Amino acid sequence: MTAKLHCFGESGNAYKAALTMTLAGYPWEPVYVDFFGGATRSPAFRKLNDMGEVPVLEDEGRVLSQSGAIMYHVVRKTGKLGGRPGEEEEVLRWVLWDNHKMSSQAGMTRFLMNFLPEDKRPREVITFMQARLSNAYGTLDAHLAGRDWLVGTAPTIADLSCCAYLYYPEPFGFTRADWPDLDRWLGNIAALPGWKHPYDLMPGNPSDRT
Amino acid sequence: MTAKLHCFGESGNAYKAALTMTLAGYPWEPVYVDFFGGATRSPAFRKLNDMGEVPVLEDEGRVLSQSGAIMYHVVRKTGKLGGRPGEEEEVLRWVLWDNHKMSSQAGMTRFLMNFLPEDKRPREVITFMQARLSNAYGTLDAHLAGRDWLVGTAPTIADLSCCAYLYYPEPFGFTRADWPDLDRWLGNIAALPGWKHPYDLMPGNPSDRT
Repeated sequence: MTAKLHCFGESGNAYKAALTMTLAGYPWEPVYVDFFGGATRSPAFRKLNDMGEVPVLEDEGRVLSQSGAIMYHVVRKTGKLGGRPGEEEEVLRWVLWDNHKMSSQAGMTRFLMNFLPEDKRPREVITFMQARLSNAYGTLDAHLAGRDWLVGTAPTIADLSCCAYLYYPEPFGFTRADWPDLDRWLGNIAALPGWKHPYDLMPGNPSDRT
Repeated sequence: MTAKLHCFGESGNAYKAALTMTLAGYPWEPVYVDFFGGATRSPAFRKLNDMGEVPVLEDEGRVLSQSGAIMYHVVRKTGKLGGRPGEEEEVLRWVLWDNHKMSSQAGMTRFLMNFLPEDKRPREVITFMQARLSNAYGTLDAHLAGRDWLVGTAPTIADLSCCAYLYYPEPFGFTRADWPDLDRWLGNIAALPGWKHPYDLMPGNPSDRT
């Protein structure tokens, strides 16, 4: 049975799981979740994942959620993208930082700026979050100076976790040109064989709703 | 050499590391970080941790950061608090969720409401974050219905990660009595042999600055 990923194109968190499986050569197929129609709030979805979030992976009779847990599952299954021996803690460190400081804030800010009606967008929150995100971009950019990858000399799930929201076209305050090392690193990831943009890898994108 | 934890009492993220080491019986000693005096922004601290955050653990000649990475280090060293075989992915799932939805938002909201001067507190941000946190408390409370611990039948780092900000006395919108299962679970953790409140486990607390 091919693994089934419950996802939608706009979710950077789902993209982390989809991209990891794709680059590791792990067979998967998408199950579209109509997030904007309220699907993740339904009792059926809550039964699948009591956190009420995508991504959810159904694989080998088990149900996994949280992008990081799914990425680690794929690392164990394929032996790929987990870092070399001795690098595991550094990989985990960046996956955790991404959850704490990057994707959590970038995903929310992008949602507020693009997927809420204009008259419902909380301006003070958006400005505040953009300042926090600027610190996060700075941390990542500084770490990437002189490096091709976040950990060691090859791509890992640390890269695939931290990059996820940075490829989306909707404006949320991130401009690649402002961060030369981030820009170069995003180019490195996008040059990996099999890489696809989130809207090409998963079903659903903003043009479906216009 | 005893492990050295760079920390301060107000940091729930540092508390996760300190509490895990304490409950696992892993010898450690605190190194006080004067966060409110700007210590984490200093070049010396940035050299220790390029993310500019506590906690940082110095142990066996290595430097670890991110509370989750430190907790996993202690699990590996002691064989304790990591969950039983087969529970590892569920433990990781809650550690990641905590970073994404609980501690990141609770820590920030508590900071804004208590550690900024009154005239600098962004009201719209605080209100917005409290609503998001209410969802997070609800997710945790629902999961804990009929359970003593987040994963399986014994305490793990999943519990120690998610609980960290919920013991602090400074108001940030969390009231234990509103969430009966959370309240019971926080009591379970506090009843573990060796448990200590963050202000009793780490140096520094708000009364130092008044």
